[in-house]
Amino acid sequence: MDRRDFARFAAVSTLTRMLAGVETTHAATAATTESADRHHQEAMRRYDELTGGPKLSIGMLVYPGMFLQDLVGPLTLFEALMNRDIHLLWKNLDPVGNDGGGSTALIPVKPTMTFDDSPGQFDVLFVPGGIPGTFTMMEDPVVLDFLAQAAKNARFVTSVCTGSLILGAAGLLDGYRATSHWATRDVLAELGAIPTPGRIVTDRNRITGGGVTAGLDFGLALVALLRNRSYAEAIQLYLEYDPDPGFNAGAPEKAPPIVTAFLNDMFAGMRDTAFATARRAQRRNRSRT
Amino acid sequence: MDRRDFARFAAVSTLTRMLAGVETTHAATAATTESADRHHQEAMRRYDELTGGPKLSIGMLVYPGMFLQDLVGPLTLFEALMNRDIHLLWKNLDPVGNDGGGSTALIPVKPTMTFDDSPGQFDVLFVPGGIPGTFTMMEDPVVLDFLAQAAKNARFVTSVCTGSLILGAAGLLDGYRATSHWATRDVLAELGAIPTPGRIVTDRNRITGGGVTAGLDFGLALVALLRNRSYAEAIQLYLEYDPDPGFNAGAPEKAPPIVTAFLNDMFAGMRDTAFATARRAQRRNRSRT
Repeated sequence: MDRRDFARFAAVSTLTRMLAGVETTHAATAATTESADRHHQEAMRRYDELTGGPKLSIGMLVYPGMFLQDLVGPLTLFEALMNRDIHLLWKNLDPVGNDGGGSTALIPVKPTMTFDDSPGQFDVLFVPGGIPGTFTMMEDPVVLDFLAQAAKNARFVTSVCTGSLILGAAGLLDGYRATSHWATRDVLAELGAIPTPGRIVTDRNRITGGGVTAGLDFGLALVALLRNRSYAEAIQLYLEYDPDPGFNAGAPEKAPPIVTAFLNDMFAGMRDTAFATARRAQRRNRSRT
Repeated sequence: MDRRDFARFAAVSTLTRMLAGVETTHAATAATTESADRHHQEAMRRYDELTGGPKLSIGMLVYPGMFLQDLVGPLTLFEALMNRDIHLLWKNLDPVGNDGGGSTALIPVKPTMTFDDSPGQFDVLFVPGGIPGTFTMMEDPVVLDFLAQAAKNARFVTSVCTGSLILGAAGLLDGYRATSHWATRDVLAELGAIPTPGRIVTDRNRITGGGVTAGLDFGLALVALLRNRSYAEAIQLYLEYDPDPGFNAGAPEKAPPIVTAFLNDMFAGMRDTAFATARRAQRRNRSRT
């Protein structure tokens, strides 16, 4: 969090100036969709003038078989930031669908930038999870080499869900505390990482989130790191992120034993594959160094 | 919740049979991505045999300027169900982008079915929110007529965020308790609805969710209604939905006053438009009846 920005924002004089500026545009607002949108955008720009920092560059890997919510959760938070470029990165610009499984069957995602065209510098390098596409990525030299290179100049190297297995396969979590989907967290040890429970685990500039829905919590934490706490709170209110799942089965130790037992068994084959793939990836990492 | 299914599922004999069946496939699992996926799918199919009901038909409206997370949140929950058809519905099959604003700038969504081809019967009819595309939909006779017709035979008529304004403009919330994004909840009164605070508000077969991120809570509640509580708990664990926003600013009464003041002002122009659009829509509804 940028204390200077936070102090500027928190000062009453700041709010006065901010609202004064917004009122100018608001006074000019006719009751039309376009002007409402202009007012909204102008207010957000002014908010950014006062609380934002330098322009941000955010690179998000997309791949066949990724889990759509893993990508859209953080993307929703990042898109709420002003003064940023967000790139969806892949080998080419062909839409990545569900040929690897995952949850992009109904909504294929078209990459916006190829690995070759990507800028050398990202504030955030992000990898979503997905089963079983994740396993394919863990052994794809083009993907692993791109991540290893891009991570060198990235301010934050991040993932949600099983995306951390891809970071690990790229040799980026060796000696780092990290998390993953609860069912694959211990697989990280095969990749030299230190499996660590937590919705979000931060170790130096590596920030890994838990399974799927952790992407919203992860994205909010990144907003606070990239801008400041007040900016994150404003976006939390904007997105009405006041969760209430209604049931309390979001973690193995919280869910009814019959439910945890079922999912543990359902994931058994997937875990076999994850461990075997991680061991092969780590052997390659060791042979390179 | 289907008590019969729940009782079947909860019985130990059921778990034994379920796991026995899964073990059969697990024993055949080689450590390959494909077989892991087959095992996973087979386990889910068996889970559905034991806990699922009849095949579900879910229709989700998509439109230019919708908010992507509003759609993807519930979609993530619905896709975790087995034995269901999910349709993304629009006038035609052209991708809906961000020409209406919203958050589909990076990920346009291609509809999977046109209004004309849609089945007459949906278990769930769903409308996502979005600014300012929502306002355009509130005055689009083709969209409003489709929703009014489809709702007649729908088991649940639902929305997340400002999607409830579209349902209201279609005359579907007259006399119903309903919610919306916190900043537009009171607009519902202009459409004959009874604005009601709540993450999820249910009145007869109308189920409306709060802003954007409420879609995950909404989707989980629908899964419990469509199948049963244990099924919902299993999907909650599958998606590791154990939220921890880190900040406590997800509602106007919880956020720091300076943050709430800023967003109230930022939304002022949008609210002017929402009220004006709702009044026009309601006049048309009254003139039709």
